[in-house]
Amino acid sequence: MKAAIFFGSPSDKSIMQHAADVLREMGVEFSSHAISAHRAPELLSETLQVLEKTGTEVIIAGAGLAAHLPGVIASQTLIPVIGVPVNSGGLGGLDALLSIVQMPKPIPVAVVGIDNAVNAAYLACQILSVKYPDLKAKMTAARIKMKAEAAKANQEMDL
Amino acid sequence: MKAAIFFGSPSDKSIMQHAADVLREMGVEFSSHAISAHRAPELLSETLQVLEKTGTEVIIAGAGLAAHLPGVIASQTLIPVIGVPVNSGGLGGLDALLSIVQMPKPIPVAVVGIDNAVNAAYLACQILSVKYPDLKAKMTAARIKMKAEAAKANQEMDL
Amino acid sequence: MKAAIFFGSPSDKSIMQHAADVLREMGVEFSSHAISAHRAPELLSETLQVLEKTGTEVIIAGAGLAAHLPGVIASQTLIPVIGVPVNSGGLGGLDALLSIVQMPKPIPVAVVGIDNAVNAAYLACQILSVKYPDLKAKMTAARIKMKAEAAKANQEMDL
Amino acid sequence: MKAAIFFGSPSDKSIMQHAADVLREMGVEFSSHAISAHRAPELLSETLQVLEKTGTEVIIAGAGLAAHLPGVIASQTLIPVIGVPVNSGGLGGLDALLSIVQMPKPIPVAVVGIDNAVNAAYLACQILSVKYPDLKAKMTAARIKMKAEAAKANQEMDL
Amino acid sequence: MKAAIFFGSPSDKSIMQHAADVLREMGVEFSSHAISAHRAPELLSETLQVLEKTGTEVIIAGAGLAAHLPGVIASQTLIPVIGVPVNSGGLGGLDALLSIVQMPKPIPVAVVGIDNAVNAAYLACQILSVKYPDLKAKMTAARIKMKAEAAKANQEMDL
Amino acid sequence: MKAAIFFGSPSDKSIMQHAADVLREMGVEFSSHAISAHRAPELLSETLQVLEKTGTEVIIAGAGLAAHLPGVIASQTLIPVIGVPVNSGGLGGLDALLSIVQMPKPIPVAVVGIDNAVNAAYLACQILSVKYPDLKAKMTAARIKMKAEAAKANQEMDL
Amino acid sequence: MKAAIFFGSPSDKSIMQHAADVLREMGVEFSSHAISAHRAPELLSETLQVLEKTGTEVIIAGAGLAAHLPGVIASQTLIPVIGVPVNSGGLGGLDALLSIVQMPKPIPVAVVGIDNAVNAAYLACQILSVKYPDLKAKMTAARIKMKAEAAKANQEMDL
Amino acid sequence: MKAAIFFGSPSDKSIMQHAADVLREMGVEFSSHAISAHRAPELLSETLQVLEKTGTEVIIAGAGLAAHLPGVIASQTLIPVIGVPVNSGGLGGLDALLSIVQMPKPIPVAVVGIDNAVNAAYLACQILSVKYPDLKAKMTAARIKMKAEAAKANQEMDL
Repeated sequence: MKAAIFFGSPSDKSIMQHAADVLREMGVEFSSHAISAHRAPELLSETLQVLEKTGTEVIIAGAGLAAHLPGVIASQTLIPVIGVPVNSGGLGGLDALLSIVQMPKPIPVAVVGIDNAVNAAYLACQILSVKYPDLKAKMTAARIKMKAEAAKANQEMDL
Repeated sequence: MKAAIFFGSPSDKSIMQHAADVLREMGVEFSSHAISAHRAPELLSETLQVLEKTGTEVIIAGAGLAAHLPGVIASQTLIPVIGVPVNSGGLGGLDALLSIVQMPKPIPVAVVGIDNAVNAAYLACQILSVKYPDLKAKMTAARIKMKAEAAKANQEMDL
Repeated sequence: MKAAIFFGSPSDKSIMQHAADVLREMGVEFSSHAISAHRAPELLSETLQVLEKTGTEVIIAGAGLAAHLPGVIASQTLIPVIGVPVNSGGLGGLDALLSIVQMPKPIPVAVVGIDNAVNAAYLACQILSVKYPDLKAKMTAARIKMKAEAAKANQEMDL
Repeated sequence: MKAAIFFGSPSDKSIMQHAADVLREMGVEFSSHAISAHRAPELLSETLQVLEKTGTEVIIAGAGLAAHLPGVIASQTLIPVIGVPVNSGGLGGLDALLSIVQMPKPIPVAVVGIDNAVNAAYLACQILSVKYPDLKAKMTAARIKMKAEAAKANQEMDL
Repeated sequence: MKAAIFFGSPSDKSIMQHAADVLREMGVEFSSHAISAHRAPELLSETLQVLEKTGTEVIIAGAGLAAHLPGVIASQTLIPVIGVPVNSGGLGGLDALLSIVQMPKPIPVAVVGIDNAVNAAYLACQILSVKYPDLKAKMTAARIKMKAEAAKANQEMDL
Repeated sequence: MKAAIFFGSPSDKSIMQHAADVLREMGVEFSSHAISAHRAPELLSETLQVLEKTGTEVIIAGAGLAAHLPGVIASQTLIPVIGVPVNSGGLGGLDALLSIVQMPKPIPVAVVGIDNAVNAAYLACQILSVKYPDLKAKMTAARIKMKAEAAKANQEMDL
Repeated sequence: MKAAIFFGSPSDKSIMQHAADVLREMGVEFSSHAISAHRAPELLSETLQVLEKTGTEVIIAGAGLAAHLPGVIASQTLIPVIGVPVNSGGLGGLDALLSIVQMPKPIPVAVVGIDNAVNAAYLACQILSVKYPDLKAKMTAARIKMKAEAAKANQEMDL
Repeated sequence: MKAAIFFGSPSDKSIMQHAADVLREMGVEFSSHAISAHRAPELLSETLQVLEKTGTEVIIAGAGLAAHLPGVIASQTLIPVIGVPVNSGGLGGLDALLSIVQMPKPIPVAVVGIDNAVNAAYLACQILSVKYPDLKAKMTAARIKMKAEAAKANQEMDL
């Protein structure tokens, strides 16, 4: 049970850290890679070939602006790729969102919300849960706990 | 190996048909459900409980406008949910895209491009491939074939 | 004469406080509930059933991002639901606005401006005023006072 | 129990007809008025004064482009005003939506989806239902019927 | 030669001050009015009638959000109305821009850039210059001076 | 009393024709010019110099896409320039609107709605009316007539 | 003097044909390639290596949706790459524009307008003109001719 | 081998400085000019004529808002013009981007990302590299160095 986290620029690191934190909490082993699709395309290809051979089963990739990284990865592997549009520059992340989500057939990327690396990691866990019952059990427990906390939080609040 | 396809409105059917076609081609069994999250919330919940029990492993859900269906499903199950924003009305599908992709933590939806049910189905297959080597083999073969066709298409075209 | 205020996330509280302040000023009793449509769907349903039985006549619901809360509430009750799109993230609240306003037929939400919980509360009062002449009188007085203040403010200003 | 439907331009008539159809079906009496806020502001004011005196309890107003009509009405009465942004021109109705929804404090308009006059009428009925139990009963019956039809439609569809 | 400056909200004052500064510099007499189209519609109408009688020849009106003020003024007078969309809230002024510029036939507003009250004042001067040769001369001198300064500024800069 | 109509491309002609029709109806003499700011900048400058000398008092300029024409004209003359953003291409005219309206200080363009050449012509007439009482009288009569027709149209319509 | 035209999908062919027509008219030799960055990444790399060796000096690349093709090419060569955003789907080409133009440092793409393959070809010619005086002369002649035609077209048109 | 950098407003200087830094690093001589297309059109024309005669081979032009500068330059010369949309005001640079990129046929501007003057300079170098092998060699070395650094940065990062 192995994941990988990619991000295209050092400036995306703080966002992608949240994905790492969730994976760690859920007990999912992962490697992390700061590789730009544009600045280091050959290194990206080589890394993906290694990951394929060493059993990585899901990939999370965050990028901003003309965010090609998730799509470029998806074009080189059949491992499911989860894309995180990162908000950088003045357009609020809309550029990254559209650059990731509007992929052509038949090369999908699984996109989550802008800057939402937490959801990317949970989605990765849900995908792995299809195969790994232990992780599914952990996820189920986490969701039950979350709902209990949500219920507790719903003491009538004093607005 | 079982998938399910949901769509919120009969008008989304022609778009979602493309997902069904791909699943069928890839040999993935699926059920299909025309249930609006808003017009039939109880029915939706009941259906999801049945699907959980009968082994559905991935869900594709298409919806337009204030496209809540994929998110509402994701809030009730840990089966991975793939969302297809459907273009209806005058905003080109941007409303559906934002309504699906901007999900709060920790309830992700895996969003594909606007009207891109084909990619939703391929993503579903890639997710199932993590567990099922036979499907992975089929997907690999399909991709190799696709690349061969792409190469063939690249006879220097007469522009 | 009873209202309820919902919000999906603790981070929306400061915005929704303004609605509470107006209701209080207008003498409208209300309960308040911090319940996410996605993190606590069952709790939401149970709460709505209680509110229906105990005579709540109008609901205000604020949410950000893929703001499903108002719509999910509206799908489970015929009490009028007023939606407040909350600006969070980088898109200025456009995501929340579209996620709330583009509801399918026949499940309307009454949407007010982004972050405009004050207007949500005034709208709630106007809706209750249809039934309650005393509140209508208070609202009328408040509007007359507002216009008088507006007139006073219009001493020719020194630009 | 009396409603009124306004629209700013003859070209909006076909859209607003859907609101009239729903009101009629629900047994809500209404008057209809084709009055532009910009081309006939005095007539608009006079008409609103008449409606106030003759007991109109909810107003639906549709307009396109710089859609001021609902807001201008709301500034002159405390009767709840429901705004319908009409899609005309090339911006898909986004101009009308923003022109209606972003009203300043404390003058709310209850906005529904672009071109969604059906939802405007249902919202009007829900607002009137707060006061009129008979209409509430009708609305409840309609919703139950709608859910039954939704259930029937959910025979597993052949995708 | 007389102008008037309107703004809908005290929060718009600092923006509109720039228009006042330019008018003063150009020697154009003006009155200023803080009147909301929604909060004080009757006061607005009365004020406009006074301005018509006392010879105001051009009006500048600034407003944010659902910025109806310039259009509502334009519907009540044939004095040319210049609209200034004010950036407030999270949409960067796009809401105000569309609410002002997309006016229906035949009630135009002359819109300038977001927050660009300076240009509104220059446009007002250009409009008055059609009639008043002295102002035209001043404007011509100002433009010549501006171009000279622009030329001076174009010493090759040290980038 | 003399106006000029410019448009950047033959494809804008059908839109700008509406401006010509209004000017003719109002008895305003005008010249018309199909000159692209980009394809014929020198010709544009020469034409503007001629118009200045022969007494043109207001200019209407329509353009689509990166619609520079109105701004380029405004940079070369102090005659008031009214800009008409023309909807061409896939962005609904938003590109042309922003390219015209966001002019830098102190070079304003008076922008009207997308494709709204009718409003451009009425605005031109209102600007000329500041100087020419006869035209003001005609405009006043036209507005009175318009309001009468609006009143007539407001026989309660059968929705 | 050699150019290359790429496009990602057969559906982009009719748009890119216009680039070919201009290059041919200007006497610029070119090869054309229908290669998707996502469906045939290896083929793309191989083709680029051949083009580098055989002296291609400028590349035009058109793509729609998540339009990665121009950027992926630019990451693999120092030949200047001109990107043409192609309008496909419901967003008017805004997705393609942002996906191409927002490239990270230091990998630029030279972007032209949506669907504007003609401008891409003229830009290619201008780039080649820096080196090839004969082409520069041809371009100069073409521009002079264009201006003459523009002048001829500016017989005062009968609006 | 000579370039020129233009910018329309002193406020754009800090952005455009990055272009100058890259050109200097690459050994490309350049002149810089702070000339507004609207405030100093004649000076702009004169400057361009001088640059043509003194052998400038590529131009970089940055501008914000209704960013006409790059297009106005492109209409007066056949030297390739690279446009940098500068983010100023509330729209995140979308106004400048559309104002620059949507140029009409046959007057292209080569647009790079919002505020991305670095990429503008690299693009200028790539264009000059078509003619100057020494610069090409420098660019090739820079890219190789960049890839090496990218590889070094890709020590598995500790997320």
